[in-house]
Amino acid sequence: MLYNSNRRLDFCFMREFQLLQHVLATARGNSDVLIPPGDDMAMVRVDGSLFLAAVDQLVEERHVNLQMTPVQLVGRKAVTRCLSDVAAMAAQPVASLAAVTLSPNQTENWATQLFDAINETADLYGCPLIGGDIAVHRQEKSPMVIAVSVLARPGPTPPVQRSGARVGDVVYVTGRLGGSVDDRGLGRHLTFEPRIPEAIELAQYLGARLHAMIDISDGLGRDVSHIAQSSGVRVEINAEAVPAHVGLDWRRAMSDGEDYELCFTAAGEVPDRIADLEITAVGRIVPHDDPQDSPVVVRNGAESFDGSQLGWEHR
Amino acid sequence: MLYNSNRRLDFCFMREFQLLQHVLATARGNSDVLIPPGDDMAMVRVDGSLFLAAVDQLVEERHVNLQMTPVQLVGRKAVTRCLSDVAAMAAQPVASLAAVTLSPNQTENWATQLFDAINETADLYGCPLIGGDIAVHRQEKSPMVIAVSVLARPGPTPPVQRSGARVGDVVYVTGRLGGSVDDRGLGRHLTFEPRIPEAIELAQYLGARLHAMIDISDGLGRDVSHIAQSSGVRVEINAEAVPAHVGLDWRRAMSDGEDYELCFTAAGEVPDRIADLEITAVGRIVPHDDPQDSPVVVRNGAESFDGSQLGWEHR
Repeated sequence: MLYNSNRRLDFCFMREFQLLQHVLATARGNSDVLIPPGDDMAMVRVDGSLFLAAVDQLVEERHVNLQMTPVQLVGRKAVTRCLSDVAAMAAQPVASLAAVTLSPNQTENWATQLFDAINETADLYGCPLIGGDIAVHRQEKSPMVIAVSVLARPGPTPPVQRSGARVGDVVYVTGRLGGSVDDRGLGRHLTFEPRIPEAIELAQYLGARLHAMIDISDGLGRDVSHIAQSSGVRVEINAEAVPAHVGLDWRRAMSDGEDYELCFTAAGEVPDRIADLEITAVGRIVPHDDPQDSPVVVRNGAESFDGSQLGWEHR
Repeated sequence: MLYNSNRRLDFCFMREFQLLQHVLATARGNSDVLIPPGDDMAMVRVDGSLFLAAVDQLVEERHVNLQMTPVQLVGRKAVTRCLSDVAAMAAQPVASLAAVTLSPNQTENWATQLFDAINETADLYGCPLIGGDIAVHRQEKSPMVIAVSVLARPGPTPPVQRSGARVGDVVYVTGRLGGSVDDRGLGRHLTFEPRIPEAIELAQYLGARLHAMIDISDGLGRDVSHIAQSSGVRVEINAEAVPAHVGLDWRRAMSDGEDYELCFTAAGEVPDRIADLEITAVGRIVPHDDPQDSPVVVRNGAESFDGSQLGWEHR
């Protein structure tokens, strides 16, 4: 489907995720690529040591409203989005790189504050900025793009992949979900804490019983479907169990996205809290017997819904 | 100067390089950052192993004309620009990450071909794509931005930095310079070969006598001034010795930029060619006694010029 279409990107049915899947499926890697592209981070071996890497973008008008958002929070989010990927692997950040293309309309002041915020956030979370590139768009009012790459080392266990979920696992989420972006484009999506210490503590506590993990950026429904599909299993979510922020129903909690909480599957006993963060069982892993079935089913009393479409696509 | 200006980025005197210098000067790093930001690549230690990292951007209208340029060459250049940084450290590429923000006007077809070209180029040069991110601008005709990060391991010697030039060194360039971008925006800047094998062979041959190296992206004058300033020395260039492409004078050869050849300084004997690539002595390293002097002086017969301004700024 991807190969012979002259449909424009905004009118076609191809979504970013599908295009990315195409790219990553054709990325061959080599024998030193131990976790291939497609997970929250890839892992490679260099001279006997293992390290992980990922890249994420913050695009003006798409992910952030520059008119409304303090510049410090723009720089912060560009880095913390990536750090959420590090948490999802239960890894430890090491270093970061930032590439920024600015509009010519921006002032020196604003640009300097942006880079200072990127720098300070990277330092704060233990992944100092070790490289950068800066460009200025030629045309007026062209949207700013920030790409941050983060490098990490494995945490206390081998990195926790999306593909490890097993039938019989319980599905958990950290914290509460939904309502992260308010009407003005502000809210928790700008100030969330990447769950790195909590992920490390979970990995230490659960060890090999922590089977699969992902961070919730596109909405629980959509993100847990990545676990289901990578693992070849099906996820049953109990709608009533989904921990929503005050005033939100389970649909909002599962589909708003930009939560940057963790979703994981595990066997055996799991604590109620970790490092003051609540952990809630929201579902279970079952066999995916019929390929016609959605990978995620949400049960709400007697009703069932296709959960894999409950989520926000960043376009 | 950077802190209290409301001048717009397109009208102010701040250039990308100065802003980047500000950012990188305030990037504190830590004890595992062995080559701090500011060189072609930074180097960090992870669990006892060393690896290098850099990021570079390709911005529509700024670095590439999408109307004129075959999509395969757009993807190729996004990767080879970064690989030229790897060559400049005499390092070996390991893996790459690509983040792309596309205009909604682009077709699926074009986007797929772009990613295939990025993928194929990365594979060809031994740095398989291990991660990516894709976004689509919200507004019509917003410029495409590609950010490629490349990870590398040290080559046969410790990475060759910009800061190692010593008084008495001779300054060399590989290949021929100038005229890389033609009137339509096409030309060698799209098809150059990153000088990785040649850099490795130079490092093997010269060992500790290879003191400093940089790739020529902004023009020899501007790039060699980075060596001079990082090393605390002055560079004297002999205009008549600069190897220009046919039909170009030394000013064009030193200022056009986008050559992606190597400039290095070394002590002792240096071969005339390496791996079929010509090597030309173009100047020498002298003391930088008077801070009022430009870090680069170009001698042409009896005349002298400030060479550090001979170069192209990518804005």
